[in-house]
Amino acid sequence: MSVASGPKGTRDFYPEEMAFQQFIFSSWKKTCESYGFEQIEAPMFEHLEIYTQKSGEEIERQLYTFKDKGNRSLALRPELTPSLARMVASKGTSIKKPVRWYSIPRLFRYEKMQKGRLREFFQLNMDILGISEVTADAELIAGVIHMMINLGFTSNDFKVRISSRTLLDQLFSSIGIPKNRFSELYSLLDRKNKISESQYLDDLEKIIPETNIRSDIENIFNAESLDYIESKFGSFPAINELQELFRLLKFYSFSEYAVLDIGIVRGLAYYTGIVFEVFDIKKSLRAIAGGGRYNKLVELYGGPSTPAVGFAAGDVVLGELLKDKNLYPGMPPRSTVFLVALADLNHKDLVATAQSIRSSGISCEFSLKNVSVGKQLKYANAARSLFTIFLGGEEEKQGLVRIKDMQKGTENLISKDEIVSKLQTII
Amino acid sequence: MSVASGPKGTRDFYPEEMAFQQFIFSSWKKTCESYGFEQIEAPMFEHLEIYTQKSGEEIERQLYTFKDKGNRSLALRPELTPSLARMVASKGTSIKKPVRWYSIPRLFRYEKMQKGRLREFFQLNMDILGISEVTADAELIAGVIHMMINLGFTSNDFKVRISSRTLLDQLFSSIGIPKNRFSELYSLLDRKNKISESQYLDDLEKIIPETNIRSDIENIFNAESLDYIESKFGSFPAINELQELFRLLKFYSFSEYAVLDIGIVRGLAYYTGIVFEVFDIKKSLRAIAGGGRYNKLVELYGGPSTPAVGFAAGDVVLGELLKDKNLYPGMPPRSTVFLVALADLNHKDLVATAQSIRSSGISCEFSLKNVSVGKQLKYANAARSLFTIFLGGEEEKQGLVRIKDMQKGTENLISKDEIVSKLQTII
Repeated sequence: MSVASGPKGTRDFYPEEMAFQQFIFSSWKKTCESYGFEQIEAPMFEHLEIYTQKSGEEIERQLYTFKDKGNRSLALRPELTPSLARMVASKGTSIKKPVRWYSIPRLFRYEKMQKGRLREFFQLNMDILGISEVTADAELIAGVIHMMINLGFTSNDFKVRISSRTLLDQLFSSIGIPKNRFSELYSLLDRKNKISESQYLDDLEKIIPETNIRSDIENIFNAESLDYIESKFGSFPAINELQELFRLLKFYSFSEYAVLDIGIVRGLAYYTGIVFEVFDIKKSLRAIAGGGRYNKLVELYGGPSTPAVGFAAGDVVLGELLKDKNLYPGMPPRSTVFLVALADLNHKDLVATAQSIRSSGISCEFSLKNVSVGKQLKYANAARSLFTIFLGGEEEKQGLVRIKDMQKGTENLISKDEIVSKLQTII
Repeated sequence: MSVASGPKGTRDFYPEEMAFQQFIFSSWKKTCESYGFEQIEAPMFEHLEIYTQKSGEEIERQLYTFKDKGNRSLALRPELTPSLARMVASKGTSIKKPVRWYSIPRLFRYEKMQKGRLREFFQLNMDILGISEVTADAELIAGVIHMMINLGFTSNDFKVRISSRTLLDQLFSSIGIPKNRFSELYSLLDRKNKISESQYLDDLEKIIPETNIRSDIENIFNAESLDYIESKFGSFPAINELQELFRLLKFYSFSEYAVLDIGIVRGLAYYTGIVFEVFDIKKSLRAIAGGGRYNKLVELYGGPSTPAVGFAAGDVVLGELLKDKNLYPGMPPRSTVFLVALADLNHKDLVATAQSIRSSGISCEFSLKNVSVGKQLKYANAARSLFTIFLGGEEEKQGLVRIKDMQKGTENLISKDEIVSKLQTII
């Protein structure tokens, strides 16, 4: 077999790529756990029906589907939310609410490859279930903002763009669009930024032949404030809910990160209230994250009525932005300490020293081959070690070993018996 | 749709199961990193050929295979080693050796379900590439032993059972078994513990019709020491290698964890030297881990000749043993601190306090619903919080808040301005 790469749209994570991914994931975990979210996971593939049930048969085009040997139709998961809703539904009323769950699922979509999009990718998911109040929407949006801040981003780098499906429903009804055209209209609006202006206008005319209604739609999307909408189209309860949301975000000190963007509709049919997407400040990349309220989904899977709000953030676009902004500090050491064996060292001594260092929780390595000191120092550099300790030297007769700080280049003699305690104080 | 569970052989990880899994995974990570191993990952599915190339066409029966929409034959990965060998091979000579890699892959095998075996499971993989010396075998076996010790197991709980494919090859040749029967013989020997004694003897007779050779095989497997083998069958280089391995393990202070078990053969064809499996002390469960030397695999995938040694440990059997031995300390708190709002508290105050605690890295939660103090305390218990802080009380006029230690039941008044610094000292 010739040297081959993995399947199209997948990635190999060598230590360098993996360290970058772990930098993102550990920051995600830290944020979620500081907000009191608990981690969950679900199977990597599910019965195909849980996706077609939620998103219609056309979703199958974007899925990796297969039959198992029992002829069951399965699909690699394209998102976690259906599994999460199934898990909540299957526990019925026995599950303690509110639920605060997060997950870092690996996901699969059979899509055309493009910048910021791969066929195999990861997401952060955060969900709050059991709270219908807008306090949950605010807490969740605070979560996504805090996630970005913990990675090092500022309000000059990104914005959360917030809208409301309820408000859009109410506005669309008020300008005379029949409810049976909503689904097609939302689907087009969600595609708006991905297609040309003329394509959008053509498609819009097919759905809304009435010129005056199309001009009202344009007015809605040009609205830059809730006050403007209220003055132009009248008062709706969903406006108050959005106002309350922005008031709550002020309590979190997160006002500067959040803006109204009535044009954010989220394509998926299952959103039932406030929706939002996170974009880089120039909107030059795809969305970093997106989410909203989905109060009907657990019921759809046979569970009790359960208000819910959640978001997903992908690793690919976020990774690009982290690199653009130079926020990744680089790979940590592979081994904090590298033991260098000088001539005539007993291998037993090398291993015993390594074991005592490792047992204290400090990473330690030594050469498994009998090579020159120069070569061992090369290995120490390859391991990005912070310290080397030279074993088997003349000084050992006095119970001393040499330790070298690899960054400063300084060397010190320390007591051999106190290697571990010394390392613990300097690391 | 009715409430459904996930596909057969898969697991839903609710917070409770996930916390248990994370207990195992974080211990795995800690062990690997203390040994200077770097984490890698590979695609969740690969081109089918990389599995059939290594293990023959019959492997397909155990795989989840599917075609993508480009009609490429793919398979969910049943193990990580082929991907790892592909990744090393594709870098050619540019990869810096020695390589010390670990991974915690999610894997899939379409198998009959039984105790300790699921269709979707996780493994720890540790591999050292680029070292042909037995020092690498010793380092890796020390790694698997240390992994078990770090989880809390002792030498009364498990043993690493060590053999050598080279030695078995040499012994089998010396008693007159032709090389072309080896593969079938190893495959049978690997199944030995999974089939009945009479089935084994029947199958053995088919492969080895000669009565005297079968009796020699029995003698080999009854051997309890290398000295016995040497006295009975003569001296072989592989005996010296095993003796050196046991000598090195003594340097690691791990002699009590390792035993010779010549009957460990590892079914897979690609092992080329020392092989080993980890079992619970009574061998009442399936193998916890298994591995060995595989010096030809990178070459098989088109890479340069690369000596290698590695092992894999599954999460399912290990999880059973951890529970048997009561080594799992239980779920950590969901939120270390729960803020309780007393009557008339401004929501702003609640949120601002939570944000300052969260920003210090301490997990904190509060009720998103306006509910009674009693109900909030129930939420605090559900969150397994260590401390509750009562906001909006009379004492706040003096700048004080009440903090309750939920385990001891004790309460103290602390300065509101010093909540974070106080928490940092007591947690």
